[in-house]
Amino acid sequence: MPLKIALAQINFLVGNINANLDNIATAAIYARDQLHADMIVFPELAITGYPAEDLLFRPDFIEAANNAIYQLAERVADIAMVVGFPERDGDQLYNSAVVLQQGVILACYRKQALPNYGVFDEQRYFTAGTLPGVFEFNGHFIGLTICEDVWKSGIIDATKQAGAELLLTLNASPFNSGKSHQREAVVCQQASASQIPLLYVNQVGGQDELIFDGASFATDANGHIVFRAAEFKEQISVIEFTGNQPIPSICAPLYQEISSEYHALVLGIKDYVRKNGFHGALLGLSGGIDSALVLALAVDALGADKVEAVLMPSRYTLDMSNEDAVQEALALGVKYHCIPIEPAVNAFTGMLADVFAGTAKDTTEENIQARCRGVILMALSNKQGKLLLTTGNKSEMSVGYATLYGDMAGGFAPLKDVPKLLVYQLSRYRNTLSEVIPERVITRPPSAELAPDQIDADSLPPYDILDPILERYIEQDLSAEQIIAAGFAPKDVARAIQLVDRNEYKRRQSPPGIKISSRAFGRDRRYPITSGYRGI
Amino acid sequence: MPLKIALAQINFLVGNINANLDNIATAAIYARDQLHADMIVFPELAITGYPAEDLLFRPDFIEAANNAIYQLAERVADIAMVVGFPERDGDQLYNSAVVLQQGVILACYRKQALPNYGVFDEQRYFTAGTLPGVFEFNGHFIGLTICEDVWKSGIIDATKQAGAELLLTLNASPFNSGKSHQREAVVCQQASASQIPLLYVNQVGGQDELIFDGASFATDANGHIVFRAAEFKEQISVIEFTGNQPIPSICAPLYQEISSEYHALVLGIKDYVRKNGFHGALLGLSGGIDSALVLALAVDALGADKVEAVLMPSRYTLDMSNEDAVQEALALGVKYHCIPIEPAVNAFTGMLADVFAGTAKDTTEENIQARCRGVILMALSNKQGKLLLTTGNKSEMSVGYATLYGDMAGGFAPLKDVPKLLVYQLSRYRNTLSEVIPERVITRPPSAELAPDQIDADSLPPYDILDPILERYIEQDLSAEQIIAAGFAPKDVARAIQLVDRNEYKRRQSPPGIKISSRAFGRDRRYPITSGYRGI
Repeated sequence: MPLKIALAQINFLVGNINANLDNIATAAIYARDQLHADMIVFPELAITGYPAEDLLFRPDFIEAANNAIYQLAERVADIAMVVGFPERDGDQLYNSAVVLQQGVILACYRKQALPNYGVFDEQRYFTAGTLPGVFEFNGHFIGLTICEDVWKSGIIDATKQAGAELLLTLNASPFNSGKSHQREAVVCQQASASQIPLLYVNQVGGQDELIFDGASFATDANGHIVFRAAEFKEQISVIEFTGNQPIPSICAPLYQEISSEYHALVLGIKDYVRKNGFHGALLGLSGGIDSALVLALAVDALGADKVEAVLMPSRYTLDMSNEDAVQEALALGVKYHCIPIEPAVNAFTGMLADVFAGTAKDTTEENIQARCRGVILMALSNKQGKLLLTTGNKSEMSVGYATLYGDMAGGFAPLKDVPKLLVYQLSRYRNTLSEVIPERVITRPPSAELAPDQIDADSLPPYDILDPILERYIEQDLSAEQIIAAGFAPKDVARAIQLVDRNEYKRRQSPPGIKISSRAFGRDRRYPITSGYRGI
Repeated sequence: MPLKIALAQINFLVGNINANLDNIATAAIYARDQLHADMIVFPELAITGYPAEDLLFRPDFIEAANNAIYQLAERVADIAMVVGFPERDGDQLYNSAVVLQQGVILACYRKQALPNYGVFDEQRYFTAGTLPGVFEFNGHFIGLTICEDVWKSGIIDATKQAGAELLLTLNASPFNSGKSHQREAVVCQQASASQIPLLYVNQVGGQDELIFDGASFATDANGHIVFRAAEFKEQISVIEFTGNQPIPSICAPLYQEISSEYHALVLGIKDYVRKNGFHGALLGLSGGIDSALVLALAVDALGADKVEAVLMPSRYTLDMSNEDAVQEALALGVKYHCIPIEPAVNAFTGMLADVFAGTAKDTTEENIQARCRGVILMALSNKQGKLLLTTGNKSEMSVGYATLYGDMAGGFAPLKDVPKLLVYQLSRYRNTLSEVIPERVITRPPSAELAPDQIDADSLPPYDILDPILERYIEQDLSAEQIIAAGFAPKDVARAIQLVDRNEYKRRQSPPGIKISSRAFGRDRRYPITSGYRGI
């Protein structure tokens, strides 16, 4: 009988051990009865969801997770299950993969390489294992590894030395743009170097800032991909083996970069809304490109009936902005309201007239407008139980071109890690699927419309200059000197860097957003607010 | 000639290497010329400030820090300097202590124990050293350790085995209530167990969420404290030795717990305002106890002329609240404005009348009031360049009894880690220094005054029940079962835990506040927002 191993690319809910346990058992029974699999492999820490963060410090949580493994072992027979869980052993906690068969634990492997960089804090929680994991199953010697293990040299080799003929890898590998290619390149190279076939199982779904993109795969001993699951979708598939060699089967194609980014954003919104129990989403629709894109993403994620748009014009809002906003709502079939902000702005102006007497107008007055919009949107969100989506992009977050408690008010920021130039690209991409964003919205100069005839370029370098500077400073950690040496004007570099340095306090209070770059704001980039560092 | 070693308990600015370098050089020259010291010991990572967080990933920053060490070596002669810095060696970064003398590096020690729990992320940045550090200086064999090293067993012993007769410890050890006693107990026990005298140098100052309390000390080989620097203040002192034994000198007393908490909060406000370049601070003064305490703290931190209070009554504000608020401002000599919020609330009510038609009043209407206050306070903050202090306490932050973008709007939250019962204690403590908080404010039942005759106890268990439940759930990670077993009513436990679980999203967007407990919200407690975990 040839070996058949199922891969469970599943979407878990962090913290809900009972639901995850049900999910795992259901998948195992499906794999056994429908796919006739001998074994099913689940992602890293499937039982708790990943990352469970400081929930892992709760003794009750860890106890429940460990008990769940015993319950699972008893609940499902006649298929072996490889499941990630936080293994408690005395005072130590391990990021482990357990193999369950017929009610007993056949093997348990403890992750050796614990990532503690970027978004990862695994050394905060776990002790590293020190031994390779190999077990015998129906005459096959199968090795176990977990995520980071296969990115480090040495661990695959050691596992093979310990007798493994075939390797399983349990993963919770988060998405960023280009990651699926990078992941396959690294893992296939390692498999090939060690001449061992490998099954790579990744989870799928959105979890706060992170998207897990799935794209689980199998490679033969030469590092050739012989199977790939879809990206951004749940999928349970079975791989058949001749001896220890996986037989080629369906390889789902990888998306083009822009398409993968769009799908990541859609999944991020969908899961944040669904997993947090919101009744839908709403957003302020300004006629600008950012809110137009967020509206399209939200509708693609939730359906038009679950999304609501609010136009909040002021005296500075151009007619074309209102027209375009209405056209966007109509094109996507979304309910919209129009609530002009003038009465509230006037009220505040009057209330502050005495204390502001004799002072000049400045950004204070612009911020009041943005904050009036924030109050209206939050009132709608509170009343309806709908998630308020903010529409700011990464370029704005970087330089603080946004109003705290104004346009930054909201529960989730889909574009937080999307630079402005990519906002344009994603909008054009979305329009290739169906025309939902008016051409004029894409081509007009961007403006916050908080003062007469205002455009972003009054305050900031043009985005085709600003964005590459920001990427170099924020994602690549280059110095001003290096960025200038790369051909950017010193005054643009200085302006951009000063603004980034100065606006950490705003970012710290921004809602979570979806990581799609190599370094997102949030857990991925931890800067002090109080800081004397000056990049320029 | 007996050995004289100075301790530099100094306040650094994270990220400003040039300023820190100047600070270090000035202190060294002072110790040499005024105190006739042979050597001066600075805190952990003094050259960058602690914690520099992801600034440590910037190659330009690390290069500047390493260059600064060479500059310092050349700049100050005739005194040995022991300085903490991030040592680059190839691809690795170490948390190191370098000994500089007459322009050369006499020794360099790499921290072995890298804390990666609580607020610490040192394994994100540093590679652990593996060797004890001992150097000879004027015939003395001196050991080097850094902070966590002396909390772990084994490292002091190994350093003594390597020849050390006297131990220096460079620290950046953050405050929490009771920490100074705990720190001395642990370190003195270790010194005594290894029978080695020890000089413990801690930094002082506020850095975002953290307070470093100083309280540097020296212990003899029997673990008896023979010198202690003041808490919460800069101090450069010299310890004289007979052989390797420190000669007893002035021991500053340790504050009582309540007093240390008050001082920590004052220092936190002072340094956040000063280091971030604000012109002062302002806050909304409601007549409630939280804002009364924050006002007193702010005045004690900054002086009355740098603090401004704003009364923003609504139709639900009782006369006594306004009276008490005015009395507080007068007692502390603080300028205040009164800006009733009714016009803005009415404007929003009118603007939302259509969309809200047919819906019942709920917390939405309460939140609108709080958000109108947020807009006013932020407008004043923007216009004047003053830091807006929020006044919410830890109990409210825990259960989400606060309005996002409303009373949570602001740059800094002094009471974020102060539970309500401690707010009362701190207020009474402050009144023992001078009567600034009216007795009625302390004794009346707390109310948000967002609806008629509202008191907190309508929505929450009384604070003398709520606070101990919260401490057990949040700080001690106890389960609902365990808390109930400790004698709390199941319904109170359920209510408290449900609210804590549900309100992570609010905490994530709250301003930073000052850690004074064993576990504060912020970097210290990292919970997922999207979470299926239910503590009850």
